[in-house]
Amino acid sequence: MVDPGAANLHLPAMTEANEFVTSLASRAKTASRALVSLPGHVRDTALLRMAVEVRARRADILAANAIDIAAAGEAGLAAALIERLKLDDKRVEKIARAIEDIAGQTDPVGQTLEGYVRPNGLRIEKRRVPLGVVLFFYESRPNVTTDAAALCLKSANAVILRGGKECLHSNRALVVAIRAGLEAAGVPQDAVVFLDNPDRALVPPLLKLDHLIDIVIPRGGESLIRAVVEESTIPVLKHFTGNCHVYVDASAGTIAEQVVAVCVNAKTSYPGGAVCNAAEKILFHQDAAPLLLPRVAAALLAKGVEIRGDEATCKLFPGAIPATGADWPEEYLALKVAFKVVGSLDHAIDHINTHGSRHTDAILTTDTRAADRFVAEVDSASVMVNASTRFADGGEYGLGAELGISTDKLHARGPMGATDLTTYKWIVTGQGHCR
Amino acid sequence: MVDPGAANLHLPAMTEANEFVTSLASRAKTASRALVSLPGHVRDTALLRMAVEVRARRADILAANAIDIAAAGEAGLAAALIERLKLDDKRVEKIARAIEDIAGQTDPVGQTLEGYVRPNGLRIEKRRVPLGVVLFFYESRPNVTTDAAALCLKSANAVILRGGKECLHSNRALVVAIRAGLEAAGVPQDAVVFLDNPDRALVPPLLKLDHLIDIVIPRGGESLIRAVVEESTIPVLKHFTGNCHVYVDASAGTIAEQVVAVCVNAKTSYPGGAVCNAAEKILFHQDAAPLLLPRVAAALLAKGVEIRGDEATCKLFPGAIPATGADWPEEYLALKVAFKVVGSLDHAIDHINTHGSRHTDAILTTDTRAADRFVAEVDSASVMVNASTRFADGGEYGLGAELGISTDKLHARGPMGATDLTTYKWIVTGQGHCR
Repeated sequence: MVDPGAANLHLPAMTEANEFVTSLASRAKTASRALVSLPGHVRDTALLRMAVEVRARRADILAANAIDIAAAGEAGLAAALIERLKLDDKRVEKIARAIEDIAGQTDPVGQTLEGYVRPNGLRIEKRRVPLGVVLFFYESRPNVTTDAAALCLKSANAVILRGGKECLHSNRALVVAIRAGLEAAGVPQDAVVFLDNPDRALVPPLLKLDHLIDIVIPRGGESLIRAVVEESTIPVLKHFTGNCHVYVDASAGTIAEQVVAVCVNAKTSYPGGAVCNAAEKILFHQDAAPLLLPRVAAALLAKGVEIRGDEATCKLFPGAIPATGADWPEEYLALKVAFKVVGSLDHAIDHINTHGSRHTDAILTTDTRAADRFVAEVDSASVMVNASTRFADGGEYGLGAELGISTDKLHARGPMGATDLTTYKWIVTGQGHCR
Repeated sequence: MVDPGAANLHLPAMTEANEFVTSLASRAKTASRALVSLPGHVRDTALLRMAVEVRARRADILAANAIDIAAAGEAGLAAALIERLKLDDKRVEKIARAIEDIAGQTDPVGQTLEGYVRPNGLRIEKRRVPLGVVLFFYESRPNVTTDAAALCLKSANAVILRGGKECLHSNRALVVAIRAGLEAAGVPQDAVVFLDNPDRALVPPLLKLDHLIDIVIPRGGESLIRAVVEESTIPVLKHFTGNCHVYVDASAGTIAEQVVAVCVNAKTSYPGGAVCNAAEKILFHQDAAPLLLPRVAAALLAKGVEIRGDEATCKLFPGAIPATGADWPEEYLALKVAFKVVGSLDHAIDHINTHGSRHTDAILTTDTRAADRFVAEVDSASVMVNASTRFADGGEYGLGAELGISTDKLHARGPMGATDLTTYKWIVTGQGHCR
């Protein structure tokens, strides 16, 4: 097919990249076909063996991690980022326990979602089945490698893992343990395939393999996700980051201490506020603002948070920096927050639906009608009543772990666990029925 | 914003198209916000009033339809297509009844899908909510207009309808009745918005309104769907057509009459075989082929079906035309079928998973283990055991009507009813919980 006289110097490399990723994805596809017929107890055994292998290979895993940590230090990565990369005995044990937790969950595969008999005697059943092959992009923390592999195996999907290059050695060592666990349980090792090459040139051809891969889940910075959406012909489940709100209702004056505690928790409980479920905006009903806004502001300021605000905020709390229109849709991912005083619950809901990111938004209130309206009308994946936005998390929701937090409305919304990696099949049983 | 001296002659028209569709979609978005707080009984009342209005306006609807039919005749449309367009008293009554059926279904909105309390006392609930605004593209039959409007209202979604231009007058008259029904029940009329302009230039700007529209469902020919997927920045739920298989198992010799009846039904029960759930391929296990293949072939031939086949088929039934490799993935949508003799159940499953379209595939068998394996391993939206592929249909599955048959694996798979137009929301309730 290739004209040897052609001037396109990229062609041989492109072809090679294509062949490499196609072979990788084909191996995953073949494994996924085998997984469909494997009973749940075999998949659970493989998960338990994975945990055994992780513990047994702790020394190797820590040695590999030390290489990543040293490289990260040399590359001048931020201390907080290096901290996220780092493994120790305790963290390795936590990784093994998380896999065991997922093994202990109810098997989502094969569940009957609905089943009934039609008047003509046809039996109709809607049964949960795996998606097939999952392509998962992620960054930093090494436990994401084992969480993702475990959630995919639990749901009988094969997975292609492509982690961040800053974590390559750690991930490689973890994948060795994962695949040893699979082998020990008689599960095809290619149920977990690792893209052991950080070359970015491999990504575009991978994203075109829609005949081999069923879903792409990119978890990471917004630019990674946008690039994947742009390139991919495979359906993408997006995990954009969060511009989360806390709305302090008119009725919140009697729960002032809770309001202060929840606002501080929502903004500062994750180091540096650099997490998608941290509160970025706090809206105060005008009747509650005089009492509560200065207290919340003082508490946040004491934690080192920069406070911006609209005009009314700056009047109530002169330490605030005037906010501009650009602040409302922005996700700071930092120790910054913007306050706004709103005239009504409607105003708050409208502000959140207009400027929010449909991730997680909270109301602090003692008024049940306000809570009900907030829950019904705020169009976000998670809506919290009298709780910190920081609870929007697969572990906190009892999913064992999460593949990410979907900001899409289709398929899965909010924290995604093993069940979100399934689809269903209609099974129709007759006795020679004709229509 | 527009420089009057600019040379771009398309700009004014483009701007106009943009403004037109943005205003249309904004109206739908505003209505969708109101629908969220409307109780189910109000939506059901609106559906019942729609049915009343359709019956009351029967004369207008038939007069409008006569204009479309006359235009179709002048344009030289095929008789079968004109037949699909045509309304009469009986069909109008059927339209009204279908709306009433949908009104009588259980309300999907507000259902609790899961609900539990975490060890820390947080209550977690997963509650079904509407998607928001649905953009629906479709062709021909006028009842699709009312089915789609009714399914969207049932699920508290606003809908933008864009039907085929050959059906414009009929659709317009039906939408008048639909909106009169909404008004009579106090539901915002913009819950159903009709794109009353067949200009194709309006489609691309419409498909960019991802801040106003939540999902696009294109139902029609493959070229329409591919064009929508190409252009859209809104998530698309695809309804590609079907390359459906019937596999006649080794054990089927004792149910020979059923085999003949189901194969004939699957291929010919829809006029001209021009429907996505018609069988396009029939695979015979080599042990069953000598007895059954000639009988099935003769029965299909008697119905005017052209029979193609692999070498083994041509030996068993010399009237068959030799098939080529291009036949296996092709969807004929015509009175054509291709036969293949396979060596085993594995071979049949592999052929279907390789060449099929993941729509609907059937096994005819008396062997429970073969049935179980076929059901587990064939990766299609609907898998039939001893029933015609023609049953893959929302009405036949008891969904009241359907918006189409999804060939996607994410979100909804197979026939889509009102429930498939919903997503969910996580509702987390605490008492001042901090993480």
